[in-house]
Amino acid sequence: MVNPAYAGFIMSIFVLMKKSKPLILVTNDDGIAAPGIAALIEVMKTLGDVVVVAPDKAQSGMGHAITINSTLRIHKSKIYNVKEEYGCTGTPVDCVKFAVNIITHRKPDLCVSGINHGTNSSINVIYSGTMSAAVEGAIEGIPSIGFSLSDTSINADFTAAKKIVKTIAQKVLTSGLPRSVCLNVNIPKLKSELIKGIKICRQAKANWIEEFDKRFDPSGQPYYWLTGKFENFDAGEKDTDIWALENNYVSVVPTQFDMTAHAAIKGLTGWKL
Amino acid sequence: MVNPAYAGFIMSIFVLMKKSKPLILVTNDDGIAAPGIAALIEVMKTLGDVVVVAPDKAQSGMGHAITINSTLRIHKSKIYNVKEEYGCTGTPVDCVKFAVNIITHRKPDLCVSGINHGTNSSINVIYSGTMSAAVEGAIEGIPSIGFSLSDTSINADFTAAKKIVKTIAQKVLTSGLPRSVCLNVNIPKLKSELIKGIKICRQAKANWIEEFDKRFDPSGQPYYWLTGKFENFDAGEKDTDIWALENNYVSVVPTQFDMTAHAAIKGLTGWKL
Repeated sequence: MVNPAYAGFIMSIFVLMKKSKPLILVTNDDGIAAPGIAALIEVMKTLGDVVVVAPDKAQSGMGHAITINSTLRIHKSKIYNVKEEYGCTGTPVDCVKFAVNIITHRKPDLCVSGINHGTNSSINVIYSGTMSAAVEGAIEGIPSIGFSLSDTSINADFTAAKKIVKTIAQKVLTSGLPRSVCLNVNIPKLKSELIKGIKICRQAKANWIEEFDKRFDPSGQPYYWLTGKFENFDAGEKDTDIWALENNYVSVVPTQFDMTAHAAIKGLTGWKL
Repeated sequence: MVNPAYAGFIMSIFVLMKKSKPLILVTNDDGIAAPGIAALIEVMKTLGDVVVVAPDKAQSGMGHAITINSTLRIHKSKIYNVKEEYGCTGTPVDCVKFAVNIITHRKPDLCVSGINHGTNSSINVIYSGTMSAAVEGAIEGIPSIGFSLSDTSINADFTAAKKIVKTIAQKVLTSGLPRSVCLNVNIPKLKSELIKGIKICRQAKANWIEEFDKRFDPSGQPYYWLTGKFENFDAGEKDTDIWALENNYVSVVPTQFDMTAHAAIKGLTGWKL
């Protein structure tokens, strides 16, 4: 029989080993082969054991969609030389659910999503697959961060972004996050030395003024592309994510999944229904 | 030349006529042919001019997804004898954007989504296509309501639900809603006389404990169905939507699209980054 004191010592060693190598889940919405996720994985490999479960194709604009009317598949991949990596046929939110339930079998210490090719500031948080994956991480009780760079180009330079990602991910690994809160991090398209700092912000009040680009197929039938212009209703307000980005700061918005408009409850309770 | 006083009088008549017939946009996530939307349209026809733009197939669980990587089409439909009706190839959120920009050419006076076959209480608000359409309505500045019935059956009885829908829609048409807020209305599966009343609530803290049902295709390759069990962390709290439904009330949760965790800003601002 093993001496209980010795067993306790061995257990402590395992706990310490586990603590020294955090388990980090990486996902995104641009797909497993996107340069942005490669940059994110590169940084995460310096911080812990990395498991990647990411969509096998672009899933931008998927919001918090989940796949319930069709089936899901995963495929092992060998791109990044990490602990485990998979492409998944589902949405970014499916990827997080899949990872936690089928791949890691324990709650990761950190869930990071991105680096998105393009900002997810302001109202875009609600349409963004990148951020919905981070929100899903928070729903699952994992400290989670979504990272986006203000550059939609496939050739975007992630050098400065990688430094920011490392700083914020390290801080979250050591300090944790408030319960039910994840971070929406947006990084301006600038060289490191031109980034003025990191600002904690609120989501700006802004909106898309949609336009539908109407075209005709070869048989003369109409089809549409959703497009639009972005309008900031909070112009001039210095505590918003849009202000931070326009003024060369990284914006960090603490983001929650309680969508209750608590301030409206009292007024509506007065309704006689 | 027309007498200005007379022109003003005519204008007043038009304004009155417009007010007497509100323009109501109807959508859902179960698809344009679902019994739930038929029940909703039936009620809305008693309240105003109805325009239907709804997905041409089931879009449950689509959350706030929008279609940006592929194209959209709409098809005129003739099911409901309303002002205009269309099936759309996109998501519920696409339908709202499409309706406002391509079909109505003006902001509807009310946007209603549902009646969903199944509840969208608690965390389901974030996965729900029904509610995402209502949230999109609010983003577009339209007083908006998502309705759901606690009955997933295709043969669900909407009799009691229709009375509730009419009461709440009439109230919103006359009183409006607070800025940036829509309503998440969930109706218990009960006969009218057993419904105890309508309660203004907050979104309960609850979660899905996911399970993935693993199966094998005819060639032996694995695939998965996302499924799970629902867990209420707010059991016993009487101000939540789940409590209301379990106690035979209709739950009404004011719902917002500002996802900023305002309470967390101060603490995070203390981080030295």
